[in-house]
Amino acid sequence: MFEFKIAAQSGAARTGTLTLPHGTVETPVFMPVGTQGTVRALSPNDLRSAGATLVLANTYHLHVRPGEQVVEKLGALHRFMGWDRPLLTDSGGFQVFSLEGSRRLDEDGVEFQSHVDGSRRTLTPERATEIQWVLGADIAMAFDHVVPGGADEATARDAMERTLRWLERCGKRHEELRASYVATSLRRKSSPGENVQRSVVASCNQTLWPILQGGTHLALREEGLRRILDLGSWTGLAIGGLSVGEPKPVMYAMLEHLEPKLPALPRYLMGVGFPEDLVAAVERGVDLFDCVAPTRNGRNGSAFTPDGPVNIRNAEHRDDVRPLDASCDCETCTTFSRGYLRHLFMAEELLGLRLLSLHNVRYLIRLAGEMRDAIRRNAFGPWAVEWRRRYLHSGSA
Amino acid sequence: MFEFKIAAQSGAARTGTLTLPHGTVETPVFMPVGTQGTVRALSPNDLRSAGATLVLANTYHLHVRPGEQVVEKLGALHRFMGWDRPLLTDSGGFQVFSLEGSRRLDEDGVEFQSHVDGSRRTLTPERATEIQWVLGADIAMAFDHVVPGGADEATARDAMERTLRWLERCGKRHEELRASYVATSLRRKSSPGENVQRSVVASCNQTLWPILQGGTHLALREEGLRRILDLGSWTGLAIGGLSVGEPKPVMYAMLEHLEPKLPALPRYLMGVGFPEDLVAAVERGVDLFDCVAPTRNGRNGSAFTPDGPVNIRNAEHRDDVRPLDASCDCETCTTFSRGYLRHLFMAEELLGLRLLSLHNVRYLIRLAGEMRDAIRRNAFGPWAVEWRRRYLHSGSA
Repeated sequence: MFEFKIAAQSGAARTGTLTLPHGTVETPVFMPVGTQGTVRALSPNDLRSAGATLVLANTYHLHVRPGEQVVEKLGALHRFMGWDRPLLTDSGGFQVFSLEGSRRLDEDGVEFQSHVDGSRRTLTPERATEIQWVLGADIAMAFDHVVPGGADEATARDAMERTLRWLERCGKRHEELRASYVATSLRRKSSPGENVQRSVVASCNQTLWPILQGGTHLALREEGLRRILDLGSWTGLAIGGLSVGEPKPVMYAMLEHLEPKLPALPRYLMGVGFPEDLVAAVERGVDLFDCVAPTRNGRNGSAFTPDGPVNIRNAEHRDDVRPLDASCDCETCTTFSRGYLRHLFMAEELLGLRLLSLHNVRYLIRLAGEMRDAIRRNAFGPWAVEWRRRYLHSGSA
Repeated sequence: MFEFKIAAQSGAARTGTLTLPHGTVETPVFMPVGTQGTVRALSPNDLRSAGATLVLANTYHLHVRPGEQVVEKLGALHRFMGWDRPLLTDSGGFQVFSLEGSRRLDEDGVEFQSHVDGSRRTLTPERATEIQWVLGADIAMAFDHVVPGGADEATARDAMERTLRWLERCGKRHEELRASYVATSLRRKSSPGENVQRSVVASCNQTLWPILQGGTHLALREEGLRRILDLGSWTGLAIGGLSVGEPKPVMYAMLEHLEPKLPALPRYLMGVGFPEDLVAAVERGVDLFDCVAPTRNGRNGSAFTPDGPVNIRNAEHRDDVRPLDASCDCETCTTFSRGYLRHLFMAEELLGLRLLSLHNVRYLIRLAGEMRDAIRRNAFGPWAVEWRRRYLHSGSA
């Protein structure tokens, strides 16, 4: 369980297999984002047809609504959302720090106001870990303190130090929950009539991943990485606090600098991204990604294609019989014309939101598949040049 | 083509098979409504999985946006909306008469303002027929003059007389289009290089159905029926101008009165309905139905079940692990709990709109299937009593 095997490398890019309780995941992999326990406008069948193997859900959102106790009563997160493949829950750190309005941070945790009913809530490393344990995803994330992309070194260090102290507390609580589960399990064996909660059973094999912070400060990131690795024997590692407003070259430079220092764990670059970001990050050794871009942009009528983004609302698509992306095998591209898709958007029909979301998710999942193929052929560099020539209409990155 | 064979009767209720260019339809049948060339929130695959065999689209809406020429360029209506089974287009009469704001009626037709861009448009019997010919549905409807449910006899007679005169004009134009198609077809055979429009090919076998008007006035309805049958040899007959505000017992009485006088054609009761209306109308000899209720109510969180409607937003469903309808085989009921569906509605997630729409459409299609079975067993009466006892929580109609 939680095994990660690298099968091939091409430069820093690598492809491998991540084994999780609910299935195996080929990396590099793009995770569609199911913030509230649903990937917006898509059903589990849509996600399967798009080839999704790993889906992200959000602790903050599910805690606020419907509440983790409700999810637990409804059979824990997998059963709740009808998704039987691997799941990852973000810890809520990012959401709490991006919340508009009042929030109060201290060493214990963060007090914030629910965006749903205005009630005061508190998330601590322990609470975030407990909620995720109850939700029962395959991978839980440590509760972290995220700072904006432009944060100065003192601010970034403060947040990184806190994130490290919180990581220890998350790890401790996660171990306690696991030990308590094992104890319950053992008791259950001796008294078979005892009713063990489904979610506890589902959580037995949950793993916890740390999140590396440190803003855009290389030395902080290096130090943070070293100290995370000193804190435990992890099954994966996330890089957080990037793609939060800093210029893209800064993010790329950070990844390049960190790459040789990263251990042989799966590397998850949080909140990334757009097609060009996926290619650039895989080139720099990243394995996992999540981003709302395919669904959010899809709902706005913007579609990824091998020739760059297409805005389906444009008048040029009015009577265009061609599919959105002739190379794509998704339901949208194999069934409908651009003209029909444009009509759905102009007529504000719900089906349009779904069809473009589906295509965009399939696009990123196919893109990850193409990258895995290129890596296996040890030809990632030339593949990326060709890909960029077409997607960005230019030969250079 | 356009054959209708009655296979069994049980009282006035009957079951049969309607053969259309794009497939056969078992009656009684419920048609989901794809007003703008899409059944709101559902894909063609959803409709197939719900067992839909015949879908309705709307001439007025498609004429206004994207325009029938665009639909034609995109391969005519079937290809446009990705639906390869039978289609029926309503003529636009009902929409034009329900439009808010200014419209001007004369003997020629109706001038109205587009709800999309405010432009002045005119629909005449000929134009409505031409537009439907270009759209290329299996069944086109005659352009009719609809009056409100409470219209007095003079108003209803005026509209009925006009509808009859318009029916003659629709029939004449439809015959001209067919003759012109046959001529084109013959020319094409002699010059194989000639490029014949796909939509013309698709329309070669379109049939035109008359619409009986007459408000709530029995004598008018009887006279209208007689005069429609005198006007031609039709392949089906629609009853319009019901379910437009009159009390339900009035509609049922009308159907009972007309039933013995109706010829052996498929009978289409327009704009109906809710489950209890379908049962009551099949009991009175109706074969086809359409209504936006399953999708509109679904989007409002209201679901049909054998025990009556369920409002999924109600707090009682908060942690209810049961499916919406335990007897239903749709994706919604076989995958998700009521608690999850409620969460989707509370969280305003698009998937909820789709899942309840899908269930409601499947519910009405299964209801029609149950009625066909009961008719084949010559047990419609007792079946209806039992159905009402459960659905309406009462033993009487």
